[in-house]
Amino acid sequence: MPNELNVPSRTLMSPGPVEVHPNVLKAMTTPILGQFDPNFLAIMDETKEMIKQPFDTQNEQAFAVDGTSRSAIEAALIALVDPGDKVLIPAFGRFAYLLGEICERAQAEVKFLEKDWESSFDQNDVIEAIKEYQPKVVAMIHGETANGQMQELDEIGSYCQNNDIFLMVDMVATYGGVPIHVDDWGIDIAVAGTQKCVSVPAGMALVTYNKRVEKLLDARYQKELGLGDDERSNDPITSNYLDLSQLQRYWNEERINHHTEATTMVYALHEGLRVLINEGLENVYARHSQNNQALIAGIQAMGLEIYGDLNSKMPTVTPVKIPTEAEDDKVRDLLLNQFGVEIASSFGDLKGKVWRIGNMGYSSRHENVLHVLAALEGVLSYYGVDIHKGEGVKAALAVYMDK
Amino acid sequence: MPNELNVPSRTLMSPGPVEVHPNVLKAMTTPILGQFDPNFLAIMDETKEMIKQPFDTQNEQAFAVDGTSRSAIEAALIALVDPGDKVLIPAFGRFAYLLGEICERAQAEVKFLEKDWESSFDQNDVIEAIKEYQPKVVAMIHGETANGQMQELDEIGSYCQNNDIFLMVDMVATYGGVPIHVDDWGIDIAVAGTQKCVSVPAGMALVTYNKRVEKLLDARYQKELGLGDDERSNDPITSNYLDLSQLQRYWNEERINHHTEATTMVYALHEGLRVLINEGLENVYARHSQNNQALIAGIQAMGLEIYGDLNSKMPTVTPVKIPTEAEDDKVRDLLLNQFGVEIASSFGDLKGKVWRIGNMGYSSRHENVLHVLAALEGVLSYYGVDIHKGEGVKAALAVYMDK
Repeated sequence: MPNELNVPSRTLMSPGPVEVHPNVLKAMTTPILGQFDPNFLAIMDETKEMIKQPFDTQNEQAFAVDGTSRSAIEAALIALVDPGDKVLIPAFGRFAYLLGEICERAQAEVKFLEKDWESSFDQNDVIEAIKEYQPKVVAMIHGETANGQMQELDEIGSYCQNNDIFLMVDMVATYGGVPIHVDDWGIDIAVAGTQKCVSVPAGMALVTYNKRVEKLLDARYQKELGLGDDERSNDPITSNYLDLSQLQRYWNEERINHHTEATTMVYALHEGLRVLINEGLENVYARHSQNNQALIAGIQAMGLEIYGDLNSKMPTVTPVKIPTEAEDDKVRDLLLNQFGVEIASSFGDLKGKVWRIGNMGYSSRHENVLHVLAALEGVLSYYGVDIHKGEGVKAALAVYMDK
Repeated sequence: MPNELNVPSRTLMSPGPVEVHPNVLKAMTTPILGQFDPNFLAIMDETKEMIKQPFDTQNEQAFAVDGTSRSAIEAALIALVDPGDKVLIPAFGRFAYLLGEICERAQAEVKFLEKDWESSFDQNDVIEAIKEYQPKVVAMIHGETANGQMQELDEIGSYCQNNDIFLMVDMVATYGGVPIHVDDWGIDIAVAGTQKCVSVPAGMALVTYNKRVEKLLDARYQKELGLGDDERSNDPITSNYLDLSQLQRYWNEERINHHTEATTMVYALHEGLRVLINEGLENVYARHSQNNQALIAGIQAMGLEIYGDLNSKMPTVTPVKIPTEAEDDKVRDLLLNQFGVEIASSFGDLKGKVWRIGNMGYSSRHENVLHVLAALEGVLSYYGVDIHKGEGVKAALAVYMDK
């Protein structure tokens, strides 16, 4: 007989997946509707409208892709890129290279603008690189979970809009936790996920795009064989599954037959967004900001150091330099196995040197922040690392009680 | 304030999505684990082993793709196909053309072997076409939901194995409802879904493949930029998201960082497969077969006709010819809005001519079969269609009571 699910209690303080909101878990027990049931279509329509709010966009197109965050990242990039097209990717962390990987597989000519990971870019440096490389597309990360840095985008976006360049931005780690202004910042196509600040399980991705992208997609639309061979394109998107021109026509009134929508994940997303909107986005951002302050205060009071430029740090991720006396794996194992607390290691050069503590969605709560600080102190003390005992929790609590 | 979810009661008797098993709905409320939490990795490992059972395979590779069924169909095809490769697609229904659509976008040279939709192929006809076209890949549908026909595969598979041709089969509509023998039939790579006979919501797809495919994938593996640039391939798969060579290394011991696994859908899949295996696959197939007999008996006793060759009809879908006096949409609307019963229309030439009644997974129950027959009689009577009143339910009941 196969085992039953065996799931211990966890306080999830990695940068995703985070704890799912209890109302979302409940929504996921809702029975299935057929994919073209009018009641389900109404739920899809409501979801589309709610997706737009944390993006702060008036775009007509906003919907979900049935896959994890990177499915929509790929969908967005392959919508814009043809073989040989020039793509500029400013990289201040690991996930920029994922954008490059996807574009290289799509046979674009990728140029990375690289810098150290301790801060994000001065927007002028990116604009200068755009002027020099003259790309068709600029693809960037808004918040880099690998190193906790966040990029300013308004001037880059404005330059792209004025020079007929497409700007694609990955907002997976900031959507719903940090104020975002897709329209004001001049972003053509933006992507987000569900497993971070929306407090929904991984497995669905969000995308919104403007009329410029819509026009480009219209030219590439190709009706699927099996529905008819009367609408072929000279330049169809290479993927059928990740073809935004078809997905758009499935989520819109046309309702073309494409995939079978992931009913329960739509229920979850609908409820996750509803919870955010009912809390009020300003309140949501203030909560993340306050918990970020408490985390920073706690980590610093403990005598640990935050990695990277604090001025451009994401409120949703706090990278902590691992003290030389501590062993990365041992500390995280003890946190997980004795305290039920999960934090994350990092990537590339930062692996073994930086822990990443998340502060996202339903996991962004006072008790979680206090619990992770207390647990970290306990583990470091146990391993004989020299920290200021008792100071971390106290400093975080002071942030909460002052308000 | 956004609306709460509004989901009326439904009896889902379309060919998918079907009703989710109550134990699966409960499993989906289980809190999230981190993607590399040892407890979650154990659940993934258990899931892999369970996936293999309805495929009846000893393949080492069997795992889930985070997307709806067609995500794994595309992943399987783009793993096998390079631009210019010859692919033969025997088509006896709508979904064969989806395989072609995907291969054409991947710039394969696609040849369809076409026939009417009333039956599946004589295997010799397919083998003759293979001999003539000499393809690298043969891609086929096992059970065509569009017209309810099922294809025999053992001789085709045996020919492909002996002639170094890859056989890819879409088993989305039969997996878990009909006996399948991937190894014995000589199938190189097979794909299934969750939203049909596994009684799990849509949003995840299953794939298994043999050593021949694994070898081909090993040659195409390319480590993702962001994890390092030391393992590049001359022939990487065009998609990063749907790259089976990476997914395999994420689901296996290597545990490379790729996407963030769709935790809750894995829970659901784990529970859905566990329910099937605990019922006993032979019992599951017998249940589907009996409900199929009852449905056929009921439809015929009512005076309606089944579309296509009964000898090759899938047990999981029953296509019913729409009586000339009945209007497709009006009948289905009344079924849905008055009885809460969903059945489906069809595609292409069969649209408006055939209804499709599903018999899959948790929806494959006596009460659902009896309810759909009673409801259909009620609606047809209401619209003045000449049927044998009272005979449909009686004939179905006789099937159940005889046993």
